[in-house]
Amino acid sequence: MKAVIYTGDNKIVIEYRAKPVISEPTDAIVRVLHTTICGTDLHILQGHVPSCTPGRIIGHEGVGIIETLGAAVTNLTVGQLVIISCITSCGTCHYCRKKMPSQCESGGWILGNKIDGTQAEYVRIPHAPFSLHPLPESIDQKVAVTLSDTVPTSYECGILNGGIQPGSTVAIIGTGPIGLMILQMARNLFGPSMTTVVGRGAPRLETAKSMGADHTFSMLDGHDAVMSSALAVTKERGFDVVIEAVGTPESFETAQALVGAGGTIASLGVFGESCELHLEKLWNRNICLRTRLIDAISTPDLLKMVEAGGIDPNFLVSHSFEFDDIHNAYEAFEASSKHGALKVVVTMPGLSMNGSS
Amino acid sequence: MKAVIYTGDNKIVIEYRAKPVISEPTDAIVRVLHTTICGTDLHILQGHVPSCTPGRIIGHEGVGIIETLGAAVTNLTVGQLVIISCITSCGTCHYCRKKMPSQCESGGWILGNKIDGTQAEYVRIPHAPFSLHPLPESIDQKVAVTLSDTVPTSYECGILNGGIQPGSTVAIIGTGPIGLMILQMARNLFGPSMTTVVGRGAPRLETAKSMGADHTFSMLDGHDAVMSSALAVTKERGFDVVIEAVGTPESFETAQALVGAGGTIASLGVFGESCELHLEKLWNRNICLRTRLIDAISTPDLLKMVEAGGIDPNFLVSHSFEFDDIHNAYEAFEASSKHGALKVVVTMPGLSMNGSS
Amino acid sequence: MKAVIYTGDNKIVIEYRAKPVISEPTDAIVRVLHTTICGTDLHILQGHVPSCTPGRIIGHEGVGIIETLGAAVTNLTVGQLVIISCITSCGTCHYCRKKMPSQCESGGWILGNKIDGTQAEYVRIPHAPFSLHPLPESIDQKVAVTLSDTVPTSYECGILNGGIQPGSTVAIIGTGPIGLMILQMARNLFGPSMTTVVGRGAPRLETAKSMGADHTFSMLDGHDAVMSSALAVTKERGFDVVIEAVGTPESFETAQALVGAGGTIASLGVFGESCELHLEKLWNRNICLRTRLIDAISTPDLLKMVEAGGIDPNFLVSHSFEFDDIHNAYEAFEASSKHGALKVVVTMPGLSMNGSS
Amino acid sequence: MKAVIYTGDNKIVIEYRAKPVISEPTDAIVRVLHTTICGTDLHILQGHVPSCTPGRIIGHEGVGIIETLGAAVTNLTVGQLVIISCITSCGTCHYCRKKMPSQCESGGWILGNKIDGTQAEYVRIPHAPFSLHPLPESIDQKVAVTLSDTVPTSYECGILNGGIQPGSTVAIIGTGPIGLMILQMARNLFGPSMTTVVGRGAPRLETAKSMGADHTFSMLDGHDAVMSSALAVTKERGFDVVIEAVGTPESFETAQALVGAGGTIASLGVFGESCELHLEKLWNRNICLRTRLIDAISTPDLLKMVEAGGIDPNFLVSHSFEFDDIHNAYEAFEASSKHGALKVVVTMPGLSMNGSS
Repeated sequence: MKAVIYTGDNKIVIEYRAKPVISEPTDAIVRVLHTTICGTDLHILQGHVPSCTPGRIIGHEGVGIIETLGAAVTNLTVGQLVIISCITSCGTCHYCRKKMPSQCESGGWILGNKIDGTQAEYVRIPHAPFSLHPLPESIDQKVAVTLSDTVPTSYECGILNGGIQPGSTVAIIGTGPIGLMILQMARNLFGPSMTTVVGRGAPRLETAKSMGADHTFSMLDGHDAVMSSALAVTKERGFDVVIEAVGTPESFETAQALVGAGGTIASLGVFGESCELHLEKLWNRNICLRTRLIDAISTPDLLKMVEAGGIDPNFLVSHSFEFDDIHNAYEAFEASSKHGALKVVVTMPGLSMNGSS
Repeated sequence: MKAVIYTGDNKIVIEYRAKPVISEPTDAIVRVLHTTICGTDLHILQGHVPSCTPGRIIGHEGVGIIETLGAAVTNLTVGQLVIISCITSCGTCHYCRKKMPSQCESGGWILGNKIDGTQAEYVRIPHAPFSLHPLPESIDQKVAVTLSDTVPTSYECGILNGGIQPGSTVAIIGTGPIGLMILQMARNLFGPSMTTVVGRGAPRLETAKSMGADHTFSMLDGHDAVMSSALAVTKERGFDVVIEAVGTPESFETAQALVGAGGTIASLGVFGESCELHLEKLWNRNICLRTRLIDAISTPDLLKMVEAGGIDPNFLVSHSFEFDDIHNAYEAFEASSKHGALKVVVTMPGLSMNGSS
Repeated sequence: MKAVIYTGDNKIVIEYRAKPVISEPTDAIVRVLHTTICGTDLHILQGHVPSCTPGRIIGHEGVGIIETLGAAVTNLTVGQLVIISCITSCGTCHYCRKKMPSQCESGGWILGNKIDGTQAEYVRIPHAPFSLHPLPESIDQKVAVTLSDTVPTSYECGILNGGIQPGSTVAIIGTGPIGLMILQMARNLFGPSMTTVVGRGAPRLETAKSMGADHTFSMLDGHDAVMSSALAVTKERGFDVVIEAVGTPESFETAQALVGAGGTIASLGVFGESCELHLEKLWNRNICLRTRLIDAISTPDLLKMVEAGGIDPNFLVSHSFEFDDIHNAYEAFEASSKHGALKVVVTMPGLSMNGSS
Repeated sequence: MKAVIYTGDNKIVIEYRAKPVISEPTDAIVRVLHTTICGTDLHILQGHVPSCTPGRIIGHEGVGIIETLGAAVTNLTVGQLVIISCITSCGTCHYCRKKMPSQCESGGWILGNKIDGTQAEYVRIPHAPFSLHPLPESIDQKVAVTLSDTVPTSYECGILNGGIQPGSTVAIIGTGPIGLMILQMARNLFGPSMTTVVGRGAPRLETAKSMGADHTFSMLDGHDAVMSSALAVTKERGFDVVIEAVGTPESFETAQALVGAGGTIASLGVFGESCELHLEKLWNRNICLRTRLIDAISTPDLLKMVEAGGIDPNFLVSHSFEFDDIHNAYEAFEASSKHGALKVVVTMPGLSMNGSS
């Protein structure tokens, strides 16, 4: 089968590999229909993820059809259409029982990292009972690829960690796929009294506006000017909820400046370095700060919400490529602002003719 | 001043009374602009509220202008436009500190019940700091009358007591003003995956449908048929949240039949008799049942949500009357299904010419 | 092997049966060391549990050693000492993912009910990864039998459903094993400001007193006298938390009379009939009522608490019998007040000589 | 009257001042019986609190008798024995309604800071209805002084912010009055499976041990050695709850090193500078960090717990002084480790003869 291999020198190549086989009774082999590229895949290429060694098939997102099942998997069937969760969960360890599969003792984020991943024609999924989710017919398969990682990350690390209540004032920092998805969810799933988006480029801020953001601010106008304008719309109280979806020391600084007394900061960034925490300003303001790696435990609920129309991740799929064209997909995703790319769906050979839904 | 008096023989009369005066330093005298009629006022007329004795000025809802303030009231100003809360709260007793002013040791529901109420040109409001809420200019005054009781009752006793989560399946029993308001709130403030409304008459069920209910059922089709159809839309699981907004043994029976394992019943009914609780069916199904009298502690938050457009109680005001015409207002409200009445706003003399918004 | 069989005519017999074998890859075969008798077993004998048909090996509690494991069970090892949970959990169904294995689509309470149970030398445990818990060496094996059902039932259905907060006033109705265990947990795991126990016989009420109950009342003194005295110790406010651990219409009536405004009733009873719910008194008092069948999801946490000494179920084991003597064990448990029995541990042949810890 | 004045040059003096009088109808004048010294008072002396200007009567803790009441105060009576809360709460502003009087728009920490305080024979208490708490006879008056600040700070900023659950593993950093009070509360009010205290000097760590800490570690043994030993007692998982009660960048560093995946850090420190936050290690570990200034909303509940014996702050009162001897009290408190001082109670002239309990 064809697979995308991490070579170790900031490159991928497509190579032929042997089809994976069942090695544990809880495994599944999935024929991949659609996959996509995550920011983390770019981190791997840049050599920032030491656990991912050269030669690895990368990718941790995808939609496919179950080809083979281990003897112990009874909640799934061969031939079933499934979403592959980016998080592998054994279900029984200390952390899985506490609803934190991100920390699973024999799982977590291993696909396309510590074991071969989804940017291939077939993939072996360990702990299949908790790591695959049946995909209802009514959801477009390409859109469903966003339910592997982007949508549950937005929900768990942004929305749930932010603790939005009806009437809350919400600031979202970042206008990438996750920032925009969080904006939609905040508005559709809760009743914030106001949403504000802080970004950089005008096109994305206009998108945020068109998706219903009450206020948008561009950091290109200068940190102090933006802080002053953003706090003004809260009558200088600061925001009840600040969701930081960029992940730089600068954006974390912005989050601290925007949060109001009694407020919550949800930090979604993938940080490579420490940040300055202004406890000299925050110690007496009753602040809550939460971090989280996606646990993907909300996927069944999110599927129901997508089916019901409560959330609609359709807008996330900005580009589609065929698998043999995956170098162009990487290029489009890497230069996302140039291409206006959000999520770039990659479809396996022979499938794009048939459409996806 | 003119006032609506409960006579004791299932009647009201308009009489002239002395204008109320400040008797405690925490009092306010409010000049009433608009008031309305509550189902509880009808109960009073029928003699079902023993704490309300003949001669009482009835009414516990209204919008007005502060005419005089006791010396201890510093968070309000004379001339300020305010919503009169149906619940009087001292703020400091055991129950008020626990956010339950419904049980306030020197307040609770006393207006138009144990002391003179709002269906008059002026009203004395005890414990004004916690019992009046400044009304923003941007909210229509007639609509604001619904924020005295209907809107916070819907929110606190229905929505909050029901504990809706994103993705929940919600059944609402009852299509009166409160049932419909709950439907709107459930859809706008949370992200239920499905809402179902159970009522009787076709017009109200059509209204529910037009407000976005996914399914509607009429009890006129028979209890068993409705239960069967309603459970079918949950794949026989029952509903995550059942909000019972009628208040009869029959509707409470319906609520118990509709709730799913792990589900919650919010009971808003004003019950005059005990009900049968089917513990033989519910003991092992992890059910939660909650009752509540409105506490009106959410009013400041609700005002923000109305201002932001997150909720829109405009539809509740179905009829308007002048104060001198209040007998017709009572008649329209009593025969609400005949008149299609939801809330009937009554405007004080000399005001209806100017309009309210 | 020897096994206790439900004959269908209010009797048990010991018979020889074939040793069970693995039939699914998620099964385990456990050699039982100790088992015990539950009130539900008596219900079975009386013919009140239609799902349990004559010929069934009864019993759903026990401690044992894993003899064989299905190929898919990787979180347990052969030879491991385990507690058998009374609730079988597949881990992956709708309800198990929502932390409600009591409602598991292929599990729940099936042991000694729909499939053969633990009152035998060996038992087959389906869905072993979620239905067996490793038993630390430091916990006495006979005491550990109470962790199959009694201790997690007390915790989940009583303590967690009651929602005790530091400073709460707590009333416990019932002085059986569960009522007394709840008393200990309430005092050790939370900081109630007062605990009151309502029972019948003096010996058990004295036990409650010796375990730290601040007040005890006997229903033998008459319902009205007890209600009056019990409410007096709350200064007529009623209790914040009422835990009803008897399960009769009378005890449910008592619970409703004792609960204060804003309070919670946790109902643990196994009800065979409906009860009267006094909504005419409770509708406006902000009451919460919760039911629950044990989910046994807290067992790993409870094991830690027992190890740490935070809870000590030792007192529950009032009597020990050898397996061949199980008729006497049933007799002692059935006439528990005559024998002062709480839990009656039954030890398998050849083990009682060696001691249990 | 005599009063302790902040002179501005790191000194206090006792001066004669006019007795305060009622200036608002919500005021109370309280005759102080006992007061105490807080770490914040030392900060004021060192010039670190710019809002406190020279000439101010300092002190924000105390027990006294109500001498005069403004006309609007109806929940208190002249002659009543009261605890003076260190936080002044208007009850009605945006923040007070949200249960955050620490941020009160006309209150918060103002006593002995922005207005004259409690280290005097009399003190004016603004917003008396929410800022004074009746003291039950059964509580020792000197001990009750700790309920002005130390005990509610321990509870709200430590215990509640830490979110301890039954079975949690808890690390407390700091062995001052607050650290030790938190240890007692954690053990008495919740059921942690293990408590660990990190401090410096052996005497305080021995006190922690005698109060029931399962493990104690001294930072004098070196950061790395302590981290290694402390994590070992959690089986390298890290702690569920870390309560940081020192307030230096070093102690905050320790807190981050000790917290486990899914854990919570409650930060109680009064920080004068920013700290390094290791998001590069914490971003994917599902951490929650909370700060809080005491809101003193739990005081009524805490009084009930002290009365019931659930918590016992008696040990906090290590030293007693007469008012005229207050310089020695300051000295003992400043050199607390030399004197083994926890809280230093200062009694007004003529009272110490009678005793307080």
